[in-house]
Amino acid sequence: MANFDLMRRLTTTEGGKIILLVMDGLGGLPMAQGGPTELESAETPNMDRLAKEGCVGLSIPVARGIAPGSGPAHLGMFGYDPLVYDIGRGVLEAIGIGLTVGDGDVAVRGNFCTVDGSGVITDRRAGRIPTEEGARRVELLRDIQIDGLKIDIRVGEDYRFAMVLHGDNLSDQIADTDPQQTGVPTLPARAESPEAERTAILVNQWLAAARERLRDHAPANMCTLRGFAKDPNLPKYSDVYKLRAGCVAVYPMYKGVARLVGMETVETHHDDSIAQEFVTVASVWDQYDFIFCHVKPTDSRGEDGDFDGKIKVIEAVDAALPTLIDLKPSVLIITGDHSTPAKLRAHSWHPVPTLLWAPETHMSDRVESFGERECINGGLGQFVAADLMAMALAHAGRLVKYGA
Amino acid sequence: MANFDLMRRLTTTEGGKIILLVMDGLGGLPMAQGGPTELESAETPNMDRLAKEGCVGLSIPVARGIAPGSGPAHLGMFGYDPLVYDIGRGVLEAIGIGLTVGDGDVAVRGNFCTVDGSGVITDRRAGRIPTEEGARRVELLRDIQIDGLKIDIRVGEDYRFAMVLHGDNLSDQIADTDPQQTGVPTLPARAESPEAERTAILVNQWLAAARERLRDHAPANMCTLRGFAKDPNLPKYSDVYKLRAGCVAVYPMYKGVARLVGMETVETHHDDSIAQEFVTVASVWDQYDFIFCHVKPTDSRGEDGDFDGKIKVIEAVDAALPTLIDLKPSVLIITGDHSTPAKLRAHSWHPVPTLLWAPETHMSDRVESFGERECINGGLGQFVAADLMAMALAHAGRLVKYGA
Repeated sequence: MANFDLMRRLTTTEGGKIILLVMDGLGGLPMAQGGPTELESAETPNMDRLAKEGCVGLSIPVARGIAPGSGPAHLGMFGYDPLVYDIGRGVLEAIGIGLTVGDGDVAVRGNFCTVDGSGVITDRRAGRIPTEEGARRVELLRDIQIDGLKIDIRVGEDYRFAMVLHGDNLSDQIADTDPQQTGVPTLPARAESPEAERTAILVNQWLAAARERLRDHAPANMCTLRGFAKDPNLPKYSDVYKLRAGCVAVYPMYKGVARLVGMETVETHHDDSIAQEFVTVASVWDQYDFIFCHVKPTDSRGEDGDFDGKIKVIEAVDAALPTLIDLKPSVLIITGDHSTPAKLRAHSWHPVPTLLWAPETHMSDRVESFGERECINGGLGQFVAADLMAMALAHAGRLVKYGA
Repeated sequence: MANFDLMRRLTTTEGGKIILLVMDGLGGLPMAQGGPTELESAETPNMDRLAKEGCVGLSIPVARGIAPGSGPAHLGMFGYDPLVYDIGRGVLEAIGIGLTVGDGDVAVRGNFCTVDGSGVITDRRAGRIPTEEGARRVELLRDIQIDGLKIDIRVGEDYRFAMVLHGDNLSDQIADTDPQQTGVPTLPARAESPEAERTAILVNQWLAAARERLRDHAPANMCTLRGFAKDPNLPKYSDVYKLRAGCVAVYPMYKGVARLVGMETVETHHDDSIAQEFVTVASVWDQYDFIFCHVKPTDSRGEDGDFDGKIKVIEAVDAALPTLIDLKPSVLIITGDHSTPAKLRAHSWHPVPTLLWAPETHMSDRVESFGERECINGGLGQFVAADLMAMALAHAGRLVKYGA
């Protein structure tokens, strides 16, 4: 039985409340042989108490050895095997910069590029123009009118942008217009199936208009489109888990993935502190059975190689934690979507420290604090992240017995 | 997504070098309640240091409770789920005694047997004649000429032999000629599919000639053939892992399995010591990204029930280990293909102590030495052997991130 069929069959609408607190890129490594990790170095009296009372373990985001991007890593934690459920690149990019991808919409990534007088690409990234320059070009493209299309467009980082195409009977079966090399012209949009032919025509009308408007704006005087994709129509939390689920996150990317699985996104501000995020969780506590709360800067400091900075973020989470504990959730899970060791300055494959605290139902282990090495000997063992939601639901009393 | 599809997608041609050192049958058991195992008894200062610095765990060769043969056990370690990828018995037997099975060849196992004057089997194993007697019979069969077949034949142990049939359009869809009982005649080769009919005719011509030549050589005066099989055409290391892979092994069986997954076999001598094998690894170090080095006598001493002998082999490996460490591999894995506890005198299902040392990327645990009980608390946890290659590649920096 597929995991979701089992969940649909066993979940109840009643039960305790769950908080899933995700410190992005939580897992770390020692900077020098034998030293402590970021989490082990941090002063975390609240998490240590929860770890001592509750149960810890190590979460494998996708599979052993696999370092995931943010999209698959979050899908995994949400219970969707990332090797089965695939979010198209256009959708990830679009939701990552805050666009909304609705049912039937087609999302696509764009790159500004440089072309010569005959349309041949001389630089696929337009000299890596800064984001302000990219934003200026996006404004030139914003009001292109194509019959049968409504278009949302937004700048990404540097020379990147994303678009969401709204319209009837659109298809995402369109090949990339980026030839992946210089010295050749940009490609037209080409339908990869008969149903996509009309969409390809509309996209080519847009590309012609874009070429006209960008012509005098070298180095970003043309653009390419890649990764046409629709909403993957993932099973929704309300359906598979019978949960009213809310998301408290600051970055668009994580709100976007949460929306794809059917969570409601709670309003936040881009510069909210961790403490403010937790206050936001408290403010909507009555409205949800499940709240996913996302903390970004652990990952950012990891990617910066800033070991001490990552420690400070973890300590800020710990200091603010009483706000969540005081809500008396039935289940509080503290984990990461993947590891981002400052030593490696990148997402990694290392299993992620995970803490499950459910005072009425957890089986406590002998672990005394929250850290990578303690988690090795924790009662949750090592598990694939996609199993986490079933554990959360069970500890919240939301799963009935399987079979008689 | 199947494991190999994922590996093909994520592997890079650049990255660190990997040594996979396999002590065959490494895992052991205490001889008496509460005592140490072979590995725990051995003085292994080098492995203990690597275990302390690196990360250890327990490898489950196929699945919990399953004691594997050498073929499936090695396939598992190489990343090929042995329950999915099956090497036919004829191929295993042939490569096990040093025959080469090429594309299109058919390999088959043979047993000498005793038949009475009317061809009825009276002993399926020819009185278990010793290997020298088997070898003498094989010489009688060696120059049988069959139009359309070229045949390599070689004696195995006791009454066993193997053959590889070379020719055009051969099929392995041939039923065994061994009726699995005495009191009935040997069976003719029978085609199990129409394409196999020609091959069956050729095999029956060979069997008729063999009967003629063996007639006066009782008790081994006839033979049966079993396990007709072709090269399983396994995905190759160069394809799925993008590795230039070499094998340093002394026994034909392990060279054979390595060749089936696309490793090159480095020349060795049958009586090479462990230290000599490691020197051979060093001598070809520049030519490969990945070297599988196989140590046989741990398994042999285990099968002999020779607890102390197995300890001595492990100590010899440890003493020679600096030769490998001095090569400064990015990743050094020390493991076994399965357990062969001297106490049981046989392959067993017990998870196998495994050490992963990758100084730039490993997450060290709290383990202080290399042994079964220490590995229970290691950071690698318990994992199926087929996941080992993904871990090795990740630690060598040879896997890119999955998804954005």
